[in-house]
Amino acid sequence: MAEEETAVKEKHADELFKEFREVSVTEFFRKNRSHLGYSGQLRSLTTVVHELVTNSLDACEEAGILPELHFEIRQLGTEHYKFKARDNGPGIPVNHIPKVFGTMLAGTKFHRHIQLRGQQGIGVSGVTLFSQMTTGQPITVRTCTGDNKVNEVKLLVDVTKNNAEIVETKQYSGYWRGTEVEGELKGVAYNTSERGPYEYLRRTAIANPYTEITFTDPEGRKTVFKRSSNKVPKPPMEMKPHPKGLAVDDLLNFAKAAEARHVGSFLSSTFARVSSAKVNELQKLVTFDLNKNPRKLAWAEAEELIKAFDKMDFMAPSSEGLRPIGETQIKNAVLSILKPEFEVVITRPPKVFSGGVPFQIEVAVAYGGNAGRPATGEQEEGVTSKAEIMRFANSTPLLFDASGCALTKSVNAVEWKRYGIKDFDNSPLTIFVNLLSMYVPYVSAGKQSVAEEEEIIKEIKMALMEAGRKFQIYHSRMRREIEKEAKMNTLLKYITELAPALSKLTGKDEKKILKDLTHLVKEKLRIEALEEELEDDGGEEEADTTFKEEGE
Amino acid sequence: MAEEETAVKEKHADELFKEFREVSVTEFFRKNRSHLGYSGQLRSLTTVVHELVTNSLDACEEAGILPELHFEIRQLGTEHYKFKARDNGPGIPVNHIPKVFGTMLAGTKFHRHIQLRGQQGIGVSGVTLFSQMTTGQPITVRTCTGDNKVNEVKLLVDVTKNNAEIVETKQYSGYWRGTEVEGELKGVAYNTSERGPYEYLRRTAIANPYTEITFTDPEGRKTVFKRSSNKVPKPPMEMKPHPKGLAVDDLLNFAKAAEARHVGSFLSSTFARVSSAKVNELQKLVTFDLNKNPRKLAWAEAEELIKAFDKMDFMAPSSEGLRPIGETQIKNAVLSILKPEFEVVITRPPKVFSGGVPFQIEVAVAYGGNAGRPATGEQEEGVTSKAEIMRFANSTPLLFDASGCALTKSVNAVEWKRYGIKDFDNSPLTIFVNLLSMYVPYVSAGKQSVAEEEEIIKEIKMALMEAGRKFQIYHSRMRREIEKEAKMNTLLKYITELAPALSKLTGKDEKKILKDLTHLVKEKLRIEALEEELEDDGGEEEADTTFKEEGE
Repeated sequence: MAEEETAVKEKHADELFKEFREVSVTEFFRKNRSHLGYSGQLRSLTTVVHELVTNSLDACEEAGILPELHFEIRQLGTEHYKFKARDNGPGIPVNHIPKVFGTMLAGTKFHRHIQLRGQQGIGVSGVTLFSQMTTGQPITVRTCTGDNKVNEVKLLVDVTKNNAEIVETKQYSGYWRGTEVEGELKGVAYNTSERGPYEYLRRTAIANPYTEITFTDPEGRKTVFKRSSNKVPKPPMEMKPHPKGLAVDDLLNFAKAAEARHVGSFLSSTFARVSSAKVNELQKLVTFDLNKNPRKLAWAEAEELIKAFDKMDFMAPSSEGLRPIGETQIKNAVLSILKPEFEVVITRPPKVFSGGVPFQIEVAVAYGGNAGRPATGEQEEGVTSKAEIMRFANSTPLLFDASGCALTKSVNAVEWKRYGIKDFDNSPLTIFVNLLSMYVPYVSAGKQSVAEEEEIIKEIKMALMEAGRKFQIYHSRMRREIEKEAKMNTLLKYITELAPALSKLTGKDEKKILKDLTHLVKEKLRIEALEEELEDDGGEEEADTTFKEEGE
Repeated sequence: MAEEETAVKEKHADELFKEFREVSVTEFFRKNRSHLGYSGQLRSLTTVVHELVTNSLDACEEAGILPELHFEIRQLGTEHYKFKARDNGPGIPVNHIPKVFGTMLAGTKFHRHIQLRGQQGIGVSGVTLFSQMTTGQPITVRTCTGDNKVNEVKLLVDVTKNNAEIVETKQYSGYWRGTEVEGELKGVAYNTSERGPYEYLRRTAIANPYTEITFTDPEGRKTVFKRSSNKVPKPPMEMKPHPKGLAVDDLLNFAKAAEARHVGSFLSSTFARVSSAKVNELQKLVTFDLNKNPRKLAWAEAEELIKAFDKMDFMAPSSEGLRPIGETQIKNAVLSILKPEFEVVITRPPKVFSGGVPFQIEVAVAYGGNAGRPATGEQEEGVTSKAEIMRFANSTPLLFDASGCALTKSVNAVEWKRYGIKDFDNSPLTIFVNLLSMYVPYVSAGKQSVAEEEEIIKEIKMALMEAGRKFQIYHSRMRREIEKEAKMNTLLKYITELAPALSKLTGKDEKKILKDLTHLVKEKLRIEALEEELEDDGGEEEADTTFKEEGE
């Protein structure tokens, strides 16, 4: 610190506020690009892949199209790459192109209660911004909605206005439907590590088995991740929010925009599982008339409603709008690669977290075989595999920010020792967790890490504990198999020595005695094993009292 | 998964884009409140404290006022609290009140190259939004710029417009200068854990020793964190960006807004350490005339400039605009509380990271005494303290998201074993890290975690390694002290037995012999110790070649 002391003159507020200014959201993210995932050379490149791939998949699924994606990365110079992403999606109407690629917080997803990968209308404009920030070049968009008119637009982002700056537009005819985006990037790096584009695409293919992805890497190698299912995924469905976990503010926001004339009909038309019988039940729990106009609902009244909801029983949210990958698909896709000794997939019933948002958890646990990731570097004796956690949100791989993520924390919060996994970190384990929701509470706009919502953590833990119990049964069976074999071997050895002696004593045939004794030993061991197994199955599952059983 | 198969009808793009909409930044953060730090009951409350305290401190420092803050939290019901924050700052001019508290991305800080805690103009409007979202109540602002007119405004946020919705305004006379904000919060919880408001304020007091903070907790207990320094902190200074680490896009943005007529004069007036001699040197490295109009600078030319900057030597950025806490202050404030056996404070010279942003690192390492945090729960034998990392950015405590933070990662990347700390996690250690910069690259708008910028990580590691070497010297000295004492005790014991024998043999006085022998032993041990110390000091510091030595 400088030692000379100067008297500090106080400044007046007016002087300080001379600099007061407003900035655009693009300017904000331009300055804070790490919020969008643009930090680090590899991560920045993977983020570009992620944004374009999730957009293509969302578009295909919404339109009911079996997705076919092409992604190409070419190196142009040091830290300088070119990318090209093409899909067979529905295409983008020409008038929407500037907003989709040049305006942040604009899109089709923000307002709808629907399970999609994108949710904020930031990501793709972020790609344009990042490309332009590092190379000064516009991105090129070619898109056709199937009307034989291909629109080609080169555009930049006008940062101060949060709008696209169109550099060039063309229209020509072409028999094609889909969207192609290409652009240049500097300050990025490609590699094949587990956080790179290749691994991102591989995991995308795993979690989206109806998708075919062709990837051309900077060395010109082409990889085709073939689809393992030809079933067109059902388009995501609008899901009404569930009354459980709804916040007062959310309820009032819905009420303000309501078209229904009465609070009662507003509630049953806006929220899931609110039947007219439930409205009657509700009326007894609140102090005001539910025939009131919903647009005139006061904060205190909304609070009364929320408190009443908390006391009431509702059916769990419907799983209709949620699109899990599915047990068979996970087994086919993930587990066939890992060839594990043990595998289990658990799909939990849908639950809600704060805001009345339905969500659902799928987990898979694979043990042995190629499960886990190879241990590298210095290791304790005998450790060859490390546990690996594969995180997904709405079937989108999360490769970064693992340590701060609710999914990682849930996995680490399970007491694996209880289930016979003594040293979790150094076990040949792959834990697969997929969080499905129409709204995933990410920690930041970079969407690589899920915030610690209590209900989500609880559900993941429940799923993993269930998987853990299954592993335990397998594990103790395996242990018993080994013990049984050792026991049998000891006994058989003893019998082999005993048989000749008994034969001499009794005068009976040695072979017959040996056969009878062997049978006796095997029978005894079988009964012991059965008894132990019966003991294992006696453990009760933890009770889940949040919802009544779904009655449909 | 539902088993019945329904044919999916493809949808046309026009149908999908019917829902296309733009939303305001407030609406975005309303939906994604966890990005702002509003997730979890305790964290949400601490975030409110954080936003108001940093705003008050920034205002006081900018105005050259010795800060005096009052913070009060009262419990009104279950998960229902009231907060009141008061400062003696410059106050807010009446016309700016709505924007400060009701508009996101509006403020005095975004555009200026200045070390402040706030930087985005989001935080305080976030408090209004969170308060309104959880209680439906407006916040109340009372402020006076010292003109005897107190303005009192109750306001909400109009989410769709990103504007304040004024509920009530009053003006009355009062002899006072400062700002007071009060409001209610629901869905939050108070506790005294190390992530709660109390700890946040305690650490704020530690890192801002010229600040007096009076805190009244929900049980009515009042704590005064007294200032340990009466020196008014120097107001933060505008700092010019440094040419090293500048990005092409940043350079062009400055060039577009330039008032200078020539690129040469634009560069020397806009950036730090670019003298006219440096402009002459630069001219030889680029292919175009530096007399060109800066507003007409092309991308390729800007790129040439950046490449030339990379080849040139520049003086390191000035430390003038950075406000470290200072060695004495850290020792007084932090270390006096910990009463450690060993302490060291290291302040590194300023460096730059990408974008030409100057930054500086201060670290302190305390060992023994009350350093570290008490070990609780199951522990290995003999472990009573755990290592504790206290993270600060611009003297603001970072209490959350530790695992994903560059500061934590830097601390963990140091090989503490090298410096004699065998089991880092289980040592009585407090590591204090403060990152100073006019722009802190936070991971998200919640500002609790710093993104992994290579240069920042490197500097923190360098500082900690320097501290580590000092610890090592202390540690080996301590070890030697112990060894020396043991050696001396052995020798003295031997001498005591030897002296009578020698006395008998030589006939000399036993006491004289004992005295001479003792002197001899002590002298020998002293010389040995000196020699070992000389050896220790032979180790070379790692060379730092980024900048020439600062010549001023």
